[in-house]
Formats: sequence, C-alpha cells, structure tokens
Amino acid sequence: MGYNLLKGKRGIIFGALNDMSIAWKVAEKAHEEGALITLSNTPVACRMGEVVELGKRLNAEIIPADATSVHDLENVFTKSMDVLGGKIDFVLHSIGMSLNVRKKRLYHDLDYNFLDKTLDISAISFHKMLQVAFKMDAVSEGGSVLALSYVAAQRTLYGYNDMADAKALLESIARSFGYIYGREKKVRVNTISQSPTVTTAGSGVKGIDGLIDFSDRMSPLGNASADDCANYCITLFSDLTKKVTMQNLFHDGGFSSVGMSQRAMSQYEKSFDCDCQD
Amino acid sequence: MGYNLLKGKRGIIFGALNDMSIAWKVAEKAHEEGALITLSNTPVACRMGEVVELGKRLNAEIIPADATSVHDLENVFTKSMDVLGGKIDFVLHSIGMSLNVRKKRLYHDLDYNFLDKTLDISAISFHKMLQVAFKMDAVSEGGSVLALSYVAAQRTLYGYNDMADAKALLESIARSFGYIYGREKKVRVNTISQSPTVTTAGSGVKGIDGLIDFSDRMSPLGNASADDCANYCITLFSDLTKKVTMQNLFHDGGFSSVGMSQRAMSQYEKSFDCDCQD
Amino acid sequence: MGYNLLKGKRGIIFGALNDMSIAWKVAEKAHEEGALITLSNTPVACRMGEVVELGKRLNAEIIPADATSVHDLENVFTKSMDVLGGKIDFVLHSIGMSLNVRKKRLYHDLDYNFLDKTLDISAISFHKMLQVAFKMDAVSEGGSVLALSYVAAQRTLYGYNDMADAKALLESIARSFGYIYGREKKVRVNTISQSPTVTTAGSGVKGIDGLIDFSDRMSPLGNASADDCANYCITLFSDLTKKVTMQNLFHDGGFSSVGMSQRAMSQYEKSFDCDCQD
Amino acid sequence: MGYNLLKGKRGIIFGALNDMSIAWKVAEKAHEEGALITLSNTPVACRMGEVVELGKRLNAEIIPADATSVHDLENVFTKSMDVLGGKIDFVLHSIGMSLNVRKKRLYHDLDYNFLDKTLDISAISFHKMLQVAFKMDAVSEGGSVLALSYVAAQRTLYGYNDMADAKALLESIARSFGYIYGREKKVRVNTISQSPTVTTAGSGVKGIDGLIDFSDRMSPLGNASADDCANYCITLFSDLTKKVTMQNLFHDGGFSSVGMSQRAMSQYEKSFDCDCQD
Repeated sequence: MGYNLLKGKRGIIFGALNDMSIAWKVAEKAHEEGALITLSNTPVACRMGEVVELGKRLNAEIIPADATSVHDLENVFTKSMDVLGGKIDFVLHSIGMSLNVRKKRLYHDLDYNFLDKTLDISAISFHKMLQVAFKMDAVSEGGSVLALSYVAAQRTLYGYNDMADAKALLESIARSFGYIYGREKKVRVNTISQSPTVTTAGSGVKGIDGLIDFSDRMSPLGNASADDCANYCITLFSDLTKKVTMQNLFHDGGFSSVGMSQRAMSQYEKSFDCDCQD
Repeated sequence: MGYNLLKGKRGIIFGALNDMSIAWKVAEKAHEEGALITLSNTPVACRMGEVVELGKRLNAEIIPADATSVHDLENVFTKSMDVLGGKIDFVLHSIGMSLNVRKKRLYHDLDYNFLDKTLDISAISFHKMLQVAFKMDAVSEGGSVLALSYVAAQRTLYGYNDMADAKALLESIARSFGYIYGREKKVRVNTISQSPTVTTAGSGVKGIDGLIDFSDRMSPLGNASADDCANYCITLFSDLTKKVTMQNLFHDGGFSSVGMSQRAMSQYEKSFDCDCQD
Repeated sequence: MGYNLLKGKRGIIFGALNDMSIAWKVAEKAHEEGALITLSNTPVACRMGEVVELGKRLNAEIIPADATSVHDLENVFTKSMDVLGGKIDFVLHSIGMSLNVRKKRLYHDLDYNFLDKTLDISAISFHKMLQVAFKMDAVSEGGSVLALSYVAAQRTLYGYNDMADAKALLESIARSFGYIYGREKKVRVNTISQSPTVTTAGSGVKGIDGLIDFSDRMSPLGNASADDCANYCITLFSDLTKKVTMQNLFHDGGFSSVGMSQRAMSQYEKSFDCDCQD
Repeated sequence: MGYNLLKGKRGIIFGALNDMSIAWKVAEKAHEEGALITLSNTPVACRMGEVVELGKRLNAEIIPADATSVHDLENVFTKSMDVLGGKIDFVLHSIGMSLNVRKKRLYHDLDYNFLDKTLDISAISFHKMLQVAFKMDAVSEGGSVLALSYVAAQRTLYGYNDMADAKALLESIARSFGYIYGREKKVRVNTISQSPTVTTAGSGVKGIDGLIDFSDRMSPLGNASADDCANYCITLFSDLTKKVTMQNLFHDGGFSSVGMSQRAMSQYEKSFDCDCQD
C-alpha cells in the first residue's frame, strides 16, 4: 500500500517498545515502504512479547543492545549488515530516559549520577552509534540517520527536567557529527523535533496531560501523532531528501512557530471565569 | 541619580507619546544618564501637551517628522546635530502602526494599501532613518541605533496581525543595515524584542489583556515594563556594548525561552475545572 | 519512474522560466509523481518558447499572471480548478525580483520605490496568493503551499541587498498565514531555504560566483541543486508531511548549521600564501 | 574611572588564569565598577603567581575549587559570602576544557571518558554551581549569573570538536536553570556567546588562527576582545538588565548574523588567484 520509497533499503530501528512507540510506527512504515530492517532495544525490552511479535510480523531480526555500550552497538551494526545483506541505508535513534524524572528529582535538586545517565542514554548514545557506524563504514553513501528530539531543547518546559538538556546535547551531536559524516561519506544526520506524544517513555513527565492539551490547542494542525511522525521519518530516509542535513526539523503541527493561538487563549481565558471556585 | 553612562552623548528619540510610551521612559533615562537629546514624533503628536511638557522638562527640542518621509528625517538629523552641537551617538526607533489592526481587518482579509502603510511606517521608516543618517554621516563612530520589536517576528500570536510581518521586516533591516553601518562606521544596529507592554500603541491589538497575563505567567521574571526596557536601552547606547550588533535582543523576563511554565500551566488547568459553566 | 507520491493531486507552479529554474524542475517532478498541474508566470515569461514547450510536454495549462495583482491571482486559481477538475492540493511560489539589485543600487542607497516593488513581488505576492486561495476556498483540506527562500533572511550576505529583507518578510508571511490556514483548513504553509542556485534570477546578485563556491565548500554535502530542491518539494507536497507547517526548512547541504568547514578554511588559507601577488 | 555600576555588589569570578583570560578582565572591570569580588580557579591555577598577584591587586580572596565538585563549590559560596559580607549578586562561569581537543582525538574518534570530562568541566559544572547556590540561597534576589559560550553551540566549526556539544549543553542549562532561578528568586541566568578570543584555553583548538582571521573579517565590527567582553558582562551584572534572562547573547561584532561579508569574500577570492602555487 506504500510508495516503495524505501525499496531495497536496509535500516536499523532503535527503540521500538510497543505500539505507542514512534519507533514501532517507523518500523511498520519502513517495512511497508519496502525496506528490510532490524530492530534493537535493551535486552529486557527485546524479551517482551510485543517486540518479539513485531519482529516476526516485519520479518525483522531483533538485536538486543545497551545503547550506551560501544561493544553492543558494534554488534548491532555487524549483525544488521550480515542479516540484511549489506551496508545500512538508514538508522532511527528513538532512545531517551531520565532517572531524575523517574525518581522525581526536581531540576534544582538533580542527582548528578542520574544526570550522567540521562545524558549517556539519551544523547551520547547517538554519538556512539554514529562513531561506531563511521568507523565500521557501516552506512552506505547517501544514507540517513535520524534521532527524535523535542522543543524543550530550545525552550524550557516545566517538568521536562534534565531531558531538555539531553535533547539540546542530542541536537548538537547531530550537527557536529552530521558535518563530518556528510563531508566524508555523504551521510545525512538530522533530528526531528516531535510534538509531545503519549508514549510509555513520555508518561513519566510531570503535568504531561495539561501540556499535551495546551500543545494541541496551540498548534494549528494539532499535535502530530506517532503515525504522522513515522510518515515524516520515511521522507527523510528516502532518496528525495539527500541534501537535508545537520537540521533539527520541527514536526509539531506548527507549535514551534506559534506564540499564542486563538484556541489556546480561548481555553486559557476560561480559567478566569471561575476564579470563585478556587 | 544615574551612572553618567551617557554623559556627553547626543541622542534622538523617535516615538515618545505619553508616559506609557517606552520612548518616553528612554528619553527620561537618557537625560538622567547625562545625554542631550531631541525628540521626534508625528506633527500631530508633537503638538500634544504631554510631549511639549516632556521636551521642556528634559530640555529637549521637539522636531516633528513623518518617519516615512526621507525629507522629514533629514530635517530631524540636521536640526538635532545643530541643536545638540555635533554628531549623534544614539537613536531610538519606537514607531509602529497598523491600519489593518485599527480597522479590524483580519490577517486573512488584509487591505493591501493598509499593509503597505504598516510596513512603511513600522519597518521601512527604520531603513530610511539609517540611510539618511548614513548619507549625512550623522552618527558618530561607535554610535548605537536601536529599534523596538516583538517576539511576533518569530512566532505567530493570534491577533497581532500584519504587525508580525512588519517586525520581521524591521529585524531584517537591522541586520542588513547593521552589517554596512558597522563595516563602514563602527555603528551598532540592534533591535530589542520587548515583552508586551500596555502602551497606547499596543492597546488596539485584539485579546491583548489575556496575552499580557499569559506572557507574565510564562516569564519567570514576569513581563518587562517600559521602565525596565528604558534601562536596557541605556546599556545598549553606552560604550560598554560596542561590539553588540545585528542582534535581536529579547528583553522579556525569559518569555522567549519558555515553552510552558508552572505558573501559566497551573492557571491554564483551572480552565478545565469549570467546564460545566460554559 | 516516480513513486506516485502526488498521484491524483492538483498543483499550481508559479515561476518556471527555463530549465535552470527550480520551479521548472518542480513542475517536471510533480508531473512524474502523478500530479496534474498548471503553470503560471508573468505574461512576458509565458510567451517564451521554453515555457510553452514545458506546458505542452507536461500537459499543463499556462496561465499568465502578475503575481502582485489580486485579480490575476484569482484568475489563476479559478482557471486551475476548472482545468484540473477540483480544488488545488499544492502550490509553489518561486517568485522574486529586486530592481535595486538589477539597477545596482547599494543597500545604503536604496530607491524606495524599487524597495516597495521588491517586497510586493517577492513577498507580499505570497500573502496575496494565500489570501485569494483562502477566500475562494481553493485549496483542499490538508493541502500544501510552499515558497522558496534563502538563508539571507537570517544572515546578511554581502550583495544580496534588499532581497534579504524580502525573504525575511516572505518567511514571516508563511508563519502568519500558516497559522490561520492550518487552523481553518488544515493547509500547510512552509518555506524552503535553498542553497544559492545558478538560475537566471540569481545571476544578477553581486559576487554570486564566489559565494556559490564558498557555500559549496562550507556545506558537507555541497550545495543543493535545483533538481535536489524539486525532490524535496515533492516530499512536502505529499501526504507524508501533513503535520509540518509554519516552518522554514533549510535545504542546503548543511550550510546553515556550519560555522566553518575544513574545506572552506583550507581554501581560505591559500589566500594568505600568495599575498605577495597583491 | 568607572560608572559605579556595581557599587556595593558582591561577585564571584570563576576562571581567571592570566591577563589573556576573559575572566581576568571581568574581575578587573568589576572591581573598577565598585564591586567586591572573590576569585576561584583550580587549585593548580590558584597557586600561579599571576593569579595571586591579581587577587592582591583587586583585594580579592582566591578560593581554589574543582568546579566539578559540589563540595568545593559549596566552599566557594560559603567563603565568598563570609569574606564579602553577604549574599552574592553576580557570578561568572568562565570554565571549559576538552581532553579530546588536548589529546588531538578527532570528533569521530572521541574517547568517551574524555567526553564525560569535557561535559562535566565545561557544562555540568555550571549546573552544579547554580544548584549549590540555589540550595544555599546564596544569590541575592535580582542577582545575575553568566557563563561564557561560543557560536559553535549553534553551528559546527571545524576543529572545535566536543567543545561544541559542551557549549550547547551549557546554554541549555542556562535556560533550564534560569527558568527556575528566575521564578523562585528573580535571579537572571544567561550566556554570552563571545567572538573567538586568543586565550590560553582557546589556543589548543585546531586551526584557531585562520578561524580568528576569518571571524574578524566576517564581523562588521571585527572580533570582540576580552576587554570588550568584560564591559558587556558588567552591563549584564548591573541593575539595568534585570529582565534579561534565559538568553544566549551574541557578543561578536556581528559575526553570528553574517552569512558572507565583503571583507571575508575579498580575502577568500584571493585564494583562487594563486592556484598555480598549489
């Protein structure tokens, strides 16, 4: 039913957990568009029934890896090239986790060991992935590497905590490595800054429901869904975007370019009508 | 009572209308900091009692001008240099007006003659001011030229209408001319992107009260006032900022770097508590 | 040979002049991807043999229009819907011209009548196009409108003159109208900020050759060509990017995110080796 | 000789090493403007004759600290409040170091232990400083905290290596903590993105001389010096900028807003005149 946009391409998808995951949707769409893929996630996640099921359905080998381990990442690329029969054409990095968020440490009371982990898992893993691939020459010329980000990298959102800093670091790594990978191998490296999405990963962030509602009313097209995001990823993996690199691309229904919308303001103004109830 | 930051400097302030105007506050502070200034506004505004009064109090000549008239602007610079006794060290452009806003034409139903006027008065007047000054060599080396802008130049705000486009154009002119004026005469050109401010000019914008409240709750330091803005302008006219140019400087209590604040969200969430009342 | 990405879609392409034009390439690709299109340009351009030829080859009606004329634009949309058999799904605005550039007026010696024309032709025409389409309800829900821009909207480039301001205005209009068109009709409005491209239009800009060389060496993937740009436009017209709006998308081989590249610096440093020759 | 802009204020300056350091110049200017200050640097640096000398000259206690140690930072704030007689009004963070740069590890061959150190020393230290100060309530209401950054946080510069990522992280921390510190204590947190400056710290970066020349020719006002930067810092510590927060402020003679200058292009074009010599 697709367009064959990725026909004959080989890809690795990191981070598919369940059918709420963006990575999950990307895996499905990539398959639909003709790509051969492998899936990678943490060893624990890879043993989950749903991921195993997805792998079967998409005929995709599942390769467990701790994304902070250079050794594990080398294994993912080696095995993927082996299984898929050649160099990799596209990679999705959809990985992020903050123990500070999980353990409810506020941003002005961070645990610095947790912060190190947040940065390592959510951002430095992207550098490791790129460096491993670069050293192994595992990505084919003109290939495309994507990571998922969020507007918190540019603007502080109450409760997003140290993940904001991780996303800023992630986007910087995309630029820094994108310069080198582009220069040496014509490989594109970009980030997509996605609407807040109800995923298992996102659900720990404080006040996420109010934020998703606000974000939706601010965005003229409403929040972008995981499905929408998967579609966008496909275009960026395709051969039609070969000169797009080192960019952070907002995929958010317009949110990032709105200061105040009529819909959000009209909701906001209701809050004053009922001050008596406070 | 000041710091003598502008001691011996000569300045021109465009746009002081009454004591709610930012330009009015800048005029007062500049005077307090030791500057000699002239004031300019439209002929109608210049005949108003308050402006006449301000001129007397600050010992500042009032020079009427239509800021869209090259001829009038030449007159302002000529007279100012004459009255103040030398080249001009700093200039403030605080001028903006939209007939589309005034006549309640929506952005998707613009009157294009009005749009031309909006751009001419609110943005191109800045180019004319700079070009006149440049050709007359009226600004001293190391001088500083400022215009007032708003975040609508980067992000759409419901109701701000074609003024958003005018501000984007204004900021572009600051960069474009700043490059030349810096290269040729070491003159700085910048814009300040100020919090929404209750001024006579701002009061026509639709939904401005709700917006000011939201903006205040979003900004960790609250909205910046006209007084605050005047202080900031002084630093940018002073000799301490001689290498700052071609910049749009947000002076907004942090608004521009906030995606969602605790205070704004907590107000926003109240709106849902009373949906029954709708 | 394409992917059928635009199968059954109806589009209008403004600005195809000859086979160096980006709009020309977009027209060809859109046709290849299954779209039905009309072409529009100035009456003079529409009489040129090449444009007539292109129209025939792509089976595309050519509809002359002065893009600054609301009346002419209404005619383009009316005729296009008539000829193509329904509402329009995508529009390309590839229009820009500066008499100040052509007549070699420097940026600090602008002719203000020319400036008005620059802005009207290169930027306000985009608003008129959008307003006409909006009022006629001529674009189908989920449609996509694109305009071509340049990084001069963010950073001053020697010689680009008042076109920089026009591009800043153009990008602002895309945001401002994109908010409304998205909210009301789910129509996307974006700009692509394209590498400097050797087109007939671009050839008047001073020092364009040196700039294109520098830009190419700065960009890890090299400058994006008109062909590359056409591919990118296709993705943005397709159904795979339905949540991307109000964005300025850099399509430039990475240029916009590079401060200094190894290739450009190594060329730059050669300039010092031969100072004796000056 | 100053303006008394910091009269009666208490400050801590991190990172003064020798008279090429920006922090050194800031210390001198702050003293000149009436502030009482303490100086902090690594234990090794604090034993250097020049730093000791500076301390004596400015009547400033020198407090050694490893800026990655929460304990050491607590000591700096405790001692500074003790010595200076009250809460701190301003803080400068001028700290950065990359072992990858020093050991000539390229960006696509990073040592990840070195990267952790780069981030810890150059960016996370800023969070630690802020968190320590916040928890101790060591900064007075309306205080100002500044860190020094570089445009590499936005645009990749060949050879700047993992310091680019560190600066991106630093700027993100300034926003994230600026939001909280502003909301809770009206404390401003900003970064200054300074021209490349010939300091001891900067001298290890590959190709720094060519870059400084290019940057100077690109900037209409030329590169900003350490002295210029110190002046700018003073304005941001003063009471005249109380509503500026969460910003990254370019202090670079215009560099960040220039795509190509006449001066840089004219130098660049010389490189082609002598290709025969290659």
